[in-house]
Amino acid sequence: MTMQQTPLLMHRLMDRGAMLQPDVEVQTATETGVRSQTMLETRNRAHQLAHALNDAGVQIGDRVATFMWNGARHLEAYHAVACMGAVVHTLNIRLAPVDLEYIINHAEDKVIIVDADILPLLEKLAGKMPSVEKIIVAAEPGFENWSTSLPNAIDYEEFIQDKPKKYDWPEIDENSAMGLCYTSGTTGKPKGVMYTHRANYLHTISIAMTDVMGLSATDTLLGIVPMFHANAWGLPWVATMLGMKQVYPHRFMVPDHLARLIMDCDVTISAGVPTIWQGIKGLMESKPDQYKFKALGRLTCGGSAPPPSLIEWFWNELGVEMVQGWGMTETSPLATISRRTSKRKHLAMSDAERAANQAKAGLPIPGLEIEIFDDQWNPLPHDGKAFGELLIRGPWICSEYFNNPQPDKFHDGWLVTGDVAKIDPEGYIIITDRSKDLIKSGGEWISSVDLENHIVGLAGVAQACVVAHPHPKWDERPVALVIKKPGADLTAEQVVSHCESKFARWQLPDDVLFVESIPLTATGKMDKKVVRAQLEADGYQLPDQR
Amino acid sequence: MTMQQTPLLMHRLMDRGAMLQPDVEVQTATETGVRSQTMLETRNRAHQLAHALNDAGVQIGDRVATFMWNGARHLEAYHAVACMGAVVHTLNIRLAPVDLEYIINHAEDKVIIVDADILPLLEKLAGKMPSVEKIIVAAEPGFENWSTSLPNAIDYEEFIQDKPKKYDWPEIDENSAMGLCYTSGTTGKPKGVMYTHRANYLHTISIAMTDVMGLSATDTLLGIVPMFHANAWGLPWVATMLGMKQVYPHRFMVPDHLARLIMDCDVTISAGVPTIWQGIKGLMESKPDQYKFKALGRLTCGGSAPPPSLIEWFWNELGVEMVQGWGMTETSPLATISRRTSKRKHLAMSDAERAANQAKAGLPIPGLEIEIFDDQWNPLPHDGKAFGELLIRGPWICSEYFNNPQPDKFHDGWLVTGDVAKIDPEGYIIITDRSKDLIKSGGEWISSVDLENHIVGLAGVAQACVVAHPHPKWDERPVALVIKKPGADLTAEQVVSHCESKFARWQLPDDVLFVESIPLTATGKMDKKVVRAQLEADGYQLPDQR
Repeated sequence: MTMQQTPLLMHRLMDRGAMLQPDVEVQTATETGVRSQTMLETRNRAHQLAHALNDAGVQIGDRVATFMWNGARHLEAYHAVACMGAVVHTLNIRLAPVDLEYIINHAEDKVIIVDADILPLLEKLAGKMPSVEKIIVAAEPGFENWSTSLPNAIDYEEFIQDKPKKYDWPEIDENSAMGLCYTSGTTGKPKGVMYTHRANYLHTISIAMTDVMGLSATDTLLGIVPMFHANAWGLPWVATMLGMKQVYPHRFMVPDHLARLIMDCDVTISAGVPTIWQGIKGLMESKPDQYKFKALGRLTCGGSAPPPSLIEWFWNELGVEMVQGWGMTETSPLATISRRTSKRKHLAMSDAERAANQAKAGLPIPGLEIEIFDDQWNPLPHDGKAFGELLIRGPWICSEYFNNPQPDKFHDGWLVTGDVAKIDPEGYIIITDRSKDLIKSGGEWISSVDLENHIVGLAGVAQACVVAHPHPKWDERPVALVIKKPGADLTAEQVVSHCESKFARWQLPDDVLFVESIPLTATGKMDKKVVRAQLEADGYQLPDQR
Repeated sequence: MTMQQTPLLMHRLMDRGAMLQPDVEVQTATETGVRSQTMLETRNRAHQLAHALNDAGVQIGDRVATFMWNGARHLEAYHAVACMGAVVHTLNIRLAPVDLEYIINHAEDKVIIVDADILPLLEKLAGKMPSVEKIIVAAEPGFENWSTSLPNAIDYEEFIQDKPKKYDWPEIDENSAMGLCYTSGTTGKPKGVMYTHRANYLHTISIAMTDVMGLSATDTLLGIVPMFHANAWGLPWVATMLGMKQVYPHRFMVPDHLARLIMDCDVTISAGVPTIWQGIKGLMESKPDQYKFKALGRLTCGGSAPPPSLIEWFWNELGVEMVQGWGMTETSPLATISRRTSKRKHLAMSDAERAANQAKAGLPIPGLEIEIFDDQWNPLPHDGKAFGELLIRGPWICSEYFNNPQPDKFHDGWLVTGDVAKIDPEGYIIITDRSKDLIKSGGEWISSVDLENHIVGLAGVAQACVVAHPHPKWDERPVALVIKKPGADLTAEQVVSHCESKFARWQLPDDVLFVESIPLTATGKMDKKVVRAQLEADGYQLPDQR
């Protein structure tokens, strides 16, 4: 072999930030204000945590779960568990107890690190987690005097104290597991995606490229996307590799608190779902003089597509670029990216044209192949019109679920994403719908996402959700659920007439229902499965069927 | 395996640029002006070249040599040969015939692609290249009517014409060879570094990171560093992956021509050795009104360290950031990087402090380990004072030479670079010298590079070269060779007295010789081996020995 065979292991990247920028801060929001520790302290504490876990019997390949908000100790757990050769299993703290129980037992977690303030959520599973040998409780200020009914619990600080600050990271095979995340599973049982060192290493350096996330050692990240959600979009890994300043909101997830962190901690880039940015926008519109974001340059958006109007607002009002990424737990997760300027020709484009591009899922990140196929697995043209199942392959894409192969989710080496998409002549992926959320009317497909994006652009609309409802003649017809902005005066006719400007007659919603809230999944997306089921349970009938 | 086992092959990256930016131009300087072709044409021609080579019997693993200037056809050869599974062997067109002959025969090149204007250089080897079955002649405007004494020669255009524009790139092992480059070998025979797909893939995406080269799809690259030199610093691979506009100077390497390409082609970033930038600076100082670089933002410098004065000049006069990289053929080549702002704390630094950092070799690129060792292989402290052999390891570092293992160049999994360096508390690598260029005086070491960098900061000095000369008492003593700027009035005493401000008495040069030129290696570095040999051959004596 003429070149060195260095295994692609996360420890090669994760100790680098503290070496180059030891004094840069990692900050966590707490009851008593922002708590700071340095990058070097964070690194040293990660090494201590690894020693403590090793002393507690955690071996290479064992699963160590986290049940935590975003914070410095969660970051330490990422660093320690992955680098020591164990598997950091991020539990979604918003899941129902029955799902959590299934996941913990399916993963056979050996240890759970839990934030003290959410101990009660975990205590509901007392006696139902036979594989768990130890509970490590991380207590932020105000929660130091925790107590629990769970057995074998120890305080995080006591657990790591006096441990050596240098762990000799093992040289294991680069295809070894290092992370585990279960998909929220809108159908069937949750399924585990087991990340490997090789896949996550490649994802980490790929998303640090200028044209992807474009992260720099001089950036300050506000990490809003939960660290229990889809590998936290890869951000904690990149930020630690570069020694970036990192700010984590912990449980303080309301818009006002997030906006204050952006201001007070000199945040340059943040990452979260569109509803977060809608909330920040609402806040700033209602109290224009209270919030000034001096350093902020970019917001990364994912989870669902942001409306172009939101993208334009952030650019026009704040000079903030909204970067859209698309991916899923199964894709580590970043697969495509859409920047304000993703191509040379964009330099000459208007703001509106750029925002239209930014609202698309984006262009494939180098190293990935993304294609659309019809139901006979024939590839479809990239004409911006044909749509079909989106398939993806590449070095950080899942090839099977953990101990649950699910062969129908994979085809000939590709991941079948479950998304329906178009690819336009510029190479942009445009997500039309989740395949199960498409509305089939009279043999033609109607995109619920296209209708929602359009409706949300109407003044007075805060949120919109379009679902299919069964129809005896047409098979399915679209129904729009709309949340009005406070005080807005809006009629169903206005919503439908707004849609007429863009959609064909047969694509218009048959009904518009004004609602107070829309059910969300554990990861904060609109749960259309629940919406559809509720309509059915309520005996809802379409207008022409009443 | 839970994640896809996608081999890291160059074709995953190299077809991407044309897919996303088909209309962006690849430009080549010619006798009749700049010749343009699109990225899509370049990609299609690469696929055609692969077909033609395959039809001519080139198989996976075979060496296809290039004997070419930087230009679009050279880029096509990179693309085609690597992606088809063969090995692109870049021959240094400045080598002596005896070295070329050795290299071609050692590599067993099967095909040579040669620029028509330098055919005569290759013809000197007629009858001495038994492995070479075919010569492909690339003719820029003005050279179409080439003829040659070499057998089996065919015009490049004739060779690829009518071939299909889609080659089915093979799925081979990621550790397969894809590139070959011989080091210019200041001692012994040239040694071949065989790049693999895995190593070059990782190098490509790593140098595209924001904090490394920071290249973007919107950049325009002027590729000055020869494509036959150290993998062209990896730039053609990154540029093609991103679909960047690329400009290549071909044989028009004089400062005036390069400066005009920067102006006329909207170049945003260029890359070359410090002497190139010294030349451009001289030109702009002598004719300040003739050159305006509107788009230029960064110059990447490598091969040897640029003096801080040069870095400051480009920043102060042109607002151009000089990015320094350090590496060698054996390291693919980029190993360290030094940017104007490489750390958060640099944001608060003065221009002079930043330039001082930029003049250092830089910080290690993520994924690499770099250490200094004493002669017993004990690691030395990172205190900015201790210096020793620089060793390096990581996934794109050479582990043996091609068919010439040279075990003394490797130690316990590390590459022994042959450079002597310090590492400062900030983690910066500072190259003290090539180990063979250090001057050993009275048991103490004197850095020839430190003296040169200081002397070149004296007004009136164009270039300086410090070498060791044997001394009966002290073992070796430093002698400085200095080229004056035109018209400069300068004495040896002034040079020595300038050195006294920074160096101890025993470190001062014993003699200053004003010369008209300094011999260069084939890659454009000062050839101190030749300088030392010439002094010996001339019977030169140190002042105290006369």
